[in-house]
Amino acid sequence: MKFGGTSMADLERIRRAARLVAAEVDAGHKVAVVVSAMAGKTNELVAWTDGAGQPTGKAAEVHADSDDEYDVVVASGEQVTAGLLAITLRNLGYPARSMMGWQVPIKTSMLHAKARIADFPADNLINAMDSGQIVVVPGFQGISDDGRITTLGRGGSDTSAVAVAIAAQATRCDIYTDVDGVYTTDPRIEAKAKRLDKISFEEMLEMASLGAKVLQTRSVELAMAYRMPVRVLSSFVEPGENLNQGTLVCDEEEIVEKHIVSGVAYSRDEAKITLLGLPNKIGVSAAIFGRLAAANINVDMIVQSEKRSGDYANQLFTVGRRDAQRAAEIMNEAKADIGFDDLKVDEGVSKISIVGVGMRSHTGVAETMFRALSEKGINIQVISTSEIKISVLIDEAYTELAVRALHAAYGLDKIGA
Amino acid sequence: MKFGGTSMADLERIRRAARLVAAEVDAGHKVAVVVSAMAGKTNELVAWTDGAGQPTGKAAEVHADSDDEYDVVVASGEQVTAGLLAITLRNLGYPARSMMGWQVPIKTSMLHAKARIADFPADNLINAMDSGQIVVVPGFQGISDDGRITTLGRGGSDTSAVAVAIAAQATRCDIYTDVDGVYTTDPRIEAKAKRLDKISFEEMLEMASLGAKVLQTRSVELAMAYRMPVRVLSSFVEPGENLNQGTLVCDEEEIVEKHIVSGVAYSRDEAKITLLGLPNKIGVSAAIFGRLAAANINVDMIVQSEKRSGDYANQLFTVGRRDAQRAAEIMNEAKADIGFDDLKVDEGVSKISIVGVGMRSHTGVAETMFRALSEKGINIQVISTSEIKISVLIDEAYTELAVRALHAAYGLDKIGA
Repeated sequence: MKFGGTSMADLERIRRAARLVAAEVDAGHKVAVVVSAMAGKTNELVAWTDGAGQPTGKAAEVHADSDDEYDVVVASGEQVTAGLLAITLRNLGYPARSMMGWQVPIKTSMLHAKARIADFPADNLINAMDSGQIVVVPGFQGISDDGRITTLGRGGSDTSAVAVAIAAQATRCDIYTDVDGVYTTDPRIEAKAKRLDKISFEEMLEMASLGAKVLQTRSVELAMAYRMPVRVLSSFVEPGENLNQGTLVCDEEEIVEKHIVSGVAYSRDEAKITLLGLPNKIGVSAAIFGRLAAANINVDMIVQSEKRSGDYANQLFTVGRRDAQRAAEIMNEAKADIGFDDLKVDEGVSKISIVGVGMRSHTGVAETMFRALSEKGINIQVISTSEIKISVLIDEAYTELAVRALHAAYGLDKIGA
Repeated sequence: MKFGGTSMADLERIRRAARLVAAEVDAGHKVAVVVSAMAGKTNELVAWTDGAGQPTGKAAEVHADSDDEYDVVVASGEQVTAGLLAITLRNLGYPARSMMGWQVPIKTSMLHAKARIADFPADNLINAMDSGQIVVVPGFQGISDDGRITTLGRGGSDTSAVAVAIAAQATRCDIYTDVDGVYTTDPRIEAKAKRLDKISFEEMLEMASLGAKVLQTRSVELAMAYRMPVRVLSSFVEPGENLNQGTLVCDEEEIVEKHIVSGVAYSRDEAKITLLGLPNKIGVSAAIFGRLAAANINVDMIVQSEKRSGDYANQLFTVGRRDAQRAAEIMNEAKADIGFDDLKVDEGVSKISIVGVGMRSHTGVAETMFRALSEKGINIQVISTSEIKISVLIDEAYTELAVRALHAAYGLDKIGA
C-alpha cells in the first residue's frame, strides 16, 4: 500500500491511512506500506537546498554540484511520515516498524537526485513481515553503492512502492492517492470522464508519459517489467466504503472488455521549434539532435517538412516547454554549423493523445480522431503515433475543446465503471 | 566545531556558521562539524510523535512504546541541517560532505530516545577528513546494534560533538552557541556576571548538573573521561572578531589562576516532598527510595530530620518538579507499607549552588555562603555538598536575591575576563 503526500498531509490524514492499512491486515493480508512526505514538505526542503546552494564568496563563479547533499536533505521528509505512520499503527494495536531506504536496502544507481533502483534485496523486508510486522518504507529514497542516501527524482515514491511490492513478492501494489482511479480523461476538463475498472500496463505507460499525472512513468515501467498489478484508489475514504474500487493496472490478457480507445491525455508542457531553410544534406539531423541530446534536452515529436525551393527544407521538433529557450539558444549558437536561415519558437501549443490497445486490431481509429478535430475547426500541426497511441500537436487554446471532442468521438462517456 | 539550534535556525545563520568553519580551515585546521536541528524543529517533530501516539481504537488502553519510531522521526531534523551546511560550505568553495550517525557509525545502546554512545569507530570520519573533506555530522543521532536509528535525548548534540572530537582525535571541541562562554552566573539575573576564561571539567560538570544550561551534562562527563578540551563560544559573530574568546573547559592543571568559587548556579526545577511521622525502623529508606527508583524518578537531596516524640522521624527529599506529583502518588499508594502519617509536597523551592575546585583547599567557604544568605534573611531548608560544591534549597521567591548575594560574597564580579 502506498500513500501519497496529500494522504500524509497531517496527523488526521495519517490516522485515516493507518485505518486503511489496519483493514487490510484485519482481512488477513500481510502488508508493507510506502509513504510520501507530507504534502508541501518536499517543496520546502528543496527550496532550502536551493537557498543554501546560492554560490557566494570563493565559489561565486562555480556552482558546486551538491545533489548528494540535496538527497540527504529532501529524503528526510519521507523519514518523518514513515515513523509517524508506524507510531500511529502501533497505537491502533498493530505491530509496525519503519525501514529506511538504507535499511531495506533499496539499492540505487549513484546518480543523485534522479537515481534509478538497481536492486532491492528482500530478506530484511520479508523477515520483518513474516514476524508479523507491518513494514513502513519511506518512498523516494534509496542507498548508493558507496553508502550515501539517494533519491529517485520527484514522484519517485510510486516507483519505490512498486519496487517494495516486487521485493515482498506481493500479489498487488495499491497506490492510494487523491483521486479514486484512472479516468478516461481529466475530469476537470470533461465532467463525463469515466473511471476505468482496468487498464493495461502498456496503456497506463502511454497515459503517464503523455501527461496523465496519476502514476509516475517509471513506476509503470517497473510494474510492467515484473508484471506487478497496480491498483490506483482513493485514500480519502474510510475502510470498507465500496465506492473505492479504484483502477487496476494489469496485463492486457486480464482485461475482458477491451476498449478501442481507453483514454484521452493532454499535455501543455510543450513547445514547438522550427528551423527554416535547412540544407538538405547528410548529417544535418545528427548535428541538430546530437547537440540537444548533449544538453540533456529531450526531443519528443520530429517532422521534416517538404522541401521548399531547391534543396532546402524545414525541420520541426517539440521539446518540454521549460527547455524551449535553452534549445533555441543551442541551435542559434550552432547556426553557422547547421546552416539554417531562421528559427521560430512556439510555446503556445499542446499535445492531445488517444491511447488504447484496441488500435492494434481496429482500423479507422486515426480517421475518427482527425475527423472529430476537423469538425471543431482544430488544425493539426504535427502527428506522431505508436502501436497503441496517436498524438497530435495543436494550438493550446483548443486543448479543452479537443479533449472533449475526442472523449465523445470514442464514446468514452458511455464505458465501464 | 558544533553549532546549536539557534546557530542553524535559518539559511542566513547557516551561512554564518559556514563562514566560521571556513575560517578554521583557512587557518590550516582539519575540521569536523556537528550540527543541531533548526531551532524549534525538534519540538515540532516531538509534537507530531505525541499526536501520532495518542492511543485510539484497539489500543486505547495500551499506550504502545514507540521510542524507536520517535527516534526515526526526530533524528530527521539534524539530517536536514547537516545536508544544508554541507551544501553551503561547498558553495563557499570548501569540500564538504555530511555523514549520518549510521554512516560514521556512532554506535549507541538500544535505549531509544535516550541512548548512550557505546562506540564510535573513527575510520570513515578520519578517511574523509584526510581526503580534505569537512565532515558534517548530524548531532543527537546514532545507530543501535540492530541497525535502528537512535537518539541521545534532548541536548544530545553536545555529546555527539565531544564523541566526534574524540573519534577524530581532535585537539579541541568548539561548541558554538548563543552565549559567548560560561559565566560566573546567569547574566539575566546578575548583570555583573563575568565570563570565565577557563573552567575545569569537574566544575563544569557540577555547573551543568546544577542547572547551568550552557552544556549538556553527559557531554561534559564524556569530555572529562577522555580529557578532551571543550571551548564554549558564540556563533553570533563573524570569523576573526576577537571578542570571541569563549570559555575553555579543561583539566584543572591547565588553569593557573584558580578561583575558590567559580560560579553560582540555580535551578527552579525542584520540588520538596516531606513524609511526616515515619517509623524509625530498618528498611524504611529502602522502601521509599526503592519505589521511586523503580518509577525512574531521580531523587536529589535527602534529609532525615531529628526524631520527634518516641521513634518517629520526618523524611525529606527533593525531586524534579515535573516528577513531584507522580512521586507523591507512589508514596501515597505505599502509605500503609511505609507507614508514614502524612505527606507534603512543596513545589515552591529552588536550589542555589556554589561551585569551585578551590573549596578543596580553602576553609570558610561554606560559612561565607551561609552568612551571606542569612544577612538577606534567606532561610536554608536543606543543604547538600560534594567536594567542590555546596547546594542549598530555599524558598523559590528568593532565587534572584540569593544568586546576587552569593555572586558578590565570593567577589565573582571582580574576576577574570
